Amino acid sequence: MDGAGRRMYELMRELYPLCRSITGDGVRATLRTIAARIPLELHEVPSGTRVLDWTVPEEWNIRDAYIATGDGRRVVDFQSCNLHVVSYSEPVRATMTLDDLRPRLHTDPRDPDWIPYRTSYYTRSWGFCVSRRQLDSLRPGVYDVVVDSTLEPGALTYGECYLPGEGETEVLLTTHVCHPSLANDNLSGIALLAELGAALAKRPRRHSYRLLFIPGTIGSIVWLARNEDKLSAIIAGLVVACVGDAGPLTYKRSRRGDALIDRAGGYVVGRSGGRVLDFVPWGWDERQFNSPGFDLPVGCLARSLEGEFPGYHSSADDLASIRPDCLEESLRAALAIVEVVEQDGVYLNLSPKGEPQLGRRGLYRSTGGDAPDDDQLALLWVLNQSDGRHSLLEIAERSRLPFATIRRAADALLDAGLLAQAT
Amino acid sequence: MDGAGRRMYELMRELYPLCRSITGDGVRATLRTIAARIPLELHEVPSGTRVLDWTVPEEWNIRDAYIATGDGRRVVDFQSCNLHVVSYSEPVRATMTLDDLRPRLHTDPRDPDWIPYRTSYYTRSWGFCVSRRQLDSLRPGVYDVVVDSTLEPGALTYGECYLPGEGETEVLLTTHVCHPSLANDNLSGIALLAELGAALAKRPRRHSYRLLFIPGTIGSIVWLARNEDKLSAIIAGLVVACVGDAGPLTYKRSRRGDALIDRAGGYVVGRSGGRVLDFVPWGWDERQFNSPGFDLPVGCLARSLEGEFPGYHSSADDLASIRPDCLEESLRAALAIVEVVEQDGVYLNLSPKGEPQLGRRGLYRSTGGDAPDDDQLALLWVLNQSDGRHSLLEIAERSRLPFATIRRAADALLDAGLLAQAT
Amino acid sequence: MDGAGRRMYELMRELYPLCRSITGDGVRATLRTIAARIPLELHEVPSGTRVLDWTVPEEWNIRDAYIATGDGRRVVDFQSCNLHVVSYSEPVRATMTLDDLRPRLHTDPRDPDWIPYRTSYYTRSWGFCVSRRQLDSLRPGVYDVVVDSTLEPGALTYGECYLPGEGETEVLLTTHVCHPSLANDNLSGIALLAELGAALAKRPRRHSYRLLFIPGTIGSIVWLARNEDKLSAIIAGLVVACVGDAGPLTYKRSRRGDALIDRAGGYVVGRSGGRVLDFVPWGWDERQFNSPGFDLPVGCLARSLEGEFPGYHSSADDLASIRPDCLEESLRAALAIVEVVEQDGVYLNLSPKGEPQLGRRGLYRSTGGDAPDDDQLALLWVLNQSDGRHSLLEIAERSRLPFATIRRAADALLDAGLLAQAT
Repeated sequence: MDGAGRRMYELMRELYPLCRSITGDGVRATLRTIAARIPLELHEVPSGTRVLDWTVPEEWNIRDAYIATGDGRRVVDFQSCNLHVVSYSEPVRATMTLDDLRPRLHTDPRDPDWIPYRTSYYTRSWGFCVSRRQLDSLRPGVYDVVVDSTLEPGALTYGECYLPGEGETEVLLTTHVCHPSLANDNLSGIALLAELGAALAKRPRRHSYRLLFIPGTIGSIVWLARNEDKLSAIIAGLVVACVGDAGPLTYKRSRRGDALIDRAGGYVVGRSGGRVLDFVPWGWDERQFNSPGFDLPVGCLARSLEGEFPGYHSSADDLASIRPDCLEESLRAALAIVEVVEQDGVYLNLSPKGEPQLGRRGLYRSTGGDAPDDDQLALLWVLNQSDGRHSLLEIAERSRLPFATIRRAADALLDAGLLAQAT
Repeated sequence: MDGAGRRMYELMRELYPLCRSITGDGVRATLRTIAARIPLELHEVPSGTRVLDWTVPEEWNIRDAYIATGDGRRVVDFQSCNLHVVSYSEPVRATMTLDDLRPRLHTDPRDPDWIPYRTSYYTRSWGFCVSRRQLDSLRPGVYDVVVDSTLEPGALTYGECYLPGEGETEVLLTTHVCHPSLANDNLSGIALLAELGAALAKRPRRHSYRLLFIPGTIGSIVWLARNEDKLSAIIAGLVVACVGDAGPLTYKRSRRGDALIDRAGGYVVGRSGGRVLDFVPWGWDERQFNSPGFDLPVGCLARSLEGEFPGYHSSADDLASIRPDCLEESLRAALAIVEVVEQDGVYLNLSPKGEPQLGRRGLYRSTGGDAPDDDQLALLWVLNQSDGRHSLLEIAERSRLPFATIRRAADALLDAGLLAQAT
Repeated sequence: MDGAGRRMYELMRELYPLCRSITGDGVRATLRTIAARIPLELHEVPSGTRVLDWTVPEEWNIRDAYIATGDGRRVVDFQSCNLHVVSYSEPVRATMTLDDLRPRLHTDPRDPDWIPYRTSYYTRSWGFCVSRRQLDSLRPGVYDVVVDSTLEPGALTYGECYLPGEGETEVLLTTHVCHPSLANDNLSGIALLAELGAALAKRPRRHSYRLLFIPGTIGSIVWLARNEDKLSAIIAGLVVACVGDAGPLTYKRSRRGDALIDRAGGYVVGRSGGRVLDFVPWGWDERQFNSPGFDLPVGCLARSLEGEFPGYHSSADDLASIRPDCLEESLRAALAIVEVVEQDGVYLNLSPKGEPQLGRRGLYRSTGGDAPDDDQLALLWVLNQSDGRHSLLEIAERSRLPFATIRRAADALLDAGLLAQAT
């Protein structure tokens, strides 16, 4: 993998300081960094645009924010950690008592040192997130409170990388880009998708690939609203998120449950010893892709799911919790899933009555009596099951032989004229 | 539950001394006692009436029965326990040696102190049931044997309580009333059904409810024969029996196995930690309702099944083996099943493309970043699965959220105009 | 079973010395021995005949073979063990150094004393099989090498025993006869099929039975090529092999997986505590019968499968590894499977509304209150499930009652006019 884990980690480190949200310059800067690696087109969708049941919100940008004592000492400072400000906080410049301020201060019940991550996208409000220890150390009295933000008509920005393939079929790969300095959720997903895009750009592609770097929820809703004509071409999709921690590799099925992506994801992650879970209607953007009106075959690749790792949605989700080897294993799984989606197919045995004589075609060793090896078993499996109803992946599942072995057997049989693509 | 367990137990105590059988005054007295609690109509079906493959038998009544020594000492006495006489014994007045009498004396191989329960409904005969200890204490010699019974044309009596609902659909609830002084089998079922009827009479009802207090086998056959025109309205049914012992709460599926009642019964009993069993063609009146020519969606609610509790069909099935708290738990399960049958439904998400924006409708909290609670998850589940193919109960099963939570979410979404009843 | 295990073992002993292959006089002698026991017709198919994708090979016969030192001492001798010669070795008469000879010598990596079994049917070649110890004892030097065989146009021989039944339906039973002195693989299968044929010949038969004694692979291909018009009558089939060792009784399903033979085989072997396995496209002639162009309902009855027992395909598969009691258990299983295939059927309850009154027809005891026995439960099961959709075997599976008990109940109900054959 030529140091891909390390490379993804470095990209995460580069993007970590940026203050992202569902709109704003943090997202734009993030996307431009990715665009230096893969052919990414940035889309700007104006505030106020109606998208499905939603409206694109105003754009939020922030320069500074703090709570300071009368003598100017900052006791809470956005400059030290961008989680300190509730995302989408409206501009504030006020002097307040601690008692008046207290309802605006969010802490994390899980750990006294963690700063929680909070948002208020669709209700105009403002607030600060602090550790319980910070809160406890605040003396009664009067504080200067400043949120130097703008919340105004602007645009929602997302990035799209389209890699055309041989045919009409399309694979959708997405990740959310709306979180500020949170590492696993979801700089890990961003880094993996960028690396995956770079790998896909270099290889021949049977299917087209569309990679979306989008703000969570509203981003997928925007994209779906603007691209309904493209949905019928999507044969498989994957939401990638939280792929850098030490949790078990996890594939979460699409709502359909038995789509190609589900078989491919289940096969790859299952064989690697990971978890394969049924669809549930929460998590990340798979919620939107799998809403009943779209019902797209989009699964999810992750390690720990939302809420499962200790520092989830807090300052404890930092770069120290990321393991480059886990990032790399996640990437390998994504590539293996893509490989199955590229290579799977349904075939017809052209000599279906009895086994064809493989030996005469050089496909079977000439001395008999010994146990067959995996390659020979794979030939027999493909011949036996290729009646137009079983895909190579299904044959791999049933035979418990590696997909690559089954694919190789199919290629040998195609070369020998014993197999044809089913129509 | 306002003392329902205690109330059911008291009703059992009141009914315990009566000598019931499949016909006769013991059944009438039992039904009149129930009619004091719920609107019960008594039906009388004349002996000789042809019902399906059967004929209503002659009516049996008994005043006294005994085996006495020459000096008039009763060594077996119906007055002390009505199980002593084989049910449906024809009248006898004879003097016999012990050797001649012996083939008429039934004992219980399970325990030397138990008097077994035996019947001879459809073959004219007579006999006594005694404990092994009683039998062993009988000295050789001559005995006076008296069964002061009548077995003559009369009627079969059953009770029917009809509680009309809003629509055409009907729920059938039945229990057998043919056993003499046996507590769990089946005064417990009688008491539960009476209490359930009282509760149903007080509440609004989407479906109509028909409660049958019937003699076992012949009673359901009589009712089915006379009510074939009503069967198509039955959407669910439950046979209730043996619900007062300490055995595990048990739901036994209908022959169909996947009817609404099976999902409701399986859901309620499964969540309570009880047993959910497949249909088998023995047990109680579910045998008749589930015969292939009717194949009604009628399950069974019980605790120990027939044969499972130690004193089954013997004098050991007395009031001491009944636990009011278990009776009450059984009643709660029956009510919960009814609740699901009342409240289940299939809906259509009216905003099926992407998730609708719940926050703007006041259905989702405005601050994001925190874990969703059950109510929020329930909204997402109902929206995601309401494509006209999944009922709320199925959504509850799949999501593992309580049915009531799912129902509440559906109601909120109906109020918000996001959901409609599927047609 | 009147000593059937011992009888099969004696037949194996009689056939053990013969040098069989896929053609030749060893097979003919084997089939003639069987023809003395059951009405077996021998078929001769000329070399060069095209059969499906294959061609019938030349006929191979061997009189002698050896490797001898210069002074005439045989260091490897076909006369002491016919496995010493690679089957289908072409004639050789040469003087060679050990170094030149070595590539022609096959050993068995599993054990230093085993002589492996090797073949070269479709590539003209020759070779010897020796134990590792033999090989190690050979001194460098010059050896006389002789294979006194013929490999010339002739015929492929197979045996067919047809036992007509009442109707048009047919059951196919096959075993392979191509192995030289190997006991479990497959003199055991040959002996079992001969004994099974003798038993079938004596009994009334609803179905016809066709028993094939065929060389592996090419034999089934030959038979299939010549009998395509007969295939549609085959309702069930069984390949029998490796049935004499102490391994667990094993049923391997047909490719269809749910054919009558699969239910019967799974039922019989499952109840006996044996293994029931899914189809895999290797093993014996089931590979050909289950090729997708035929897809016949043919399963496999065995104990240890190919490769599973220690001495598989070596001189260690000798008569000492055979247990007559295991042979007999295998035969009993085959007969029980045949019995189910003969006796299974689908029926209609002619009194489907409620239970019919069995007591009045003498089918139910007159005294009630006691637990029902298996015969009574079987009557209720058959009545309840006989709606034209469930076979007796399915009822036996579901009720967990023995098939024979269910069959007996169905017969009693047929006699009572309560049941009719479904059409």
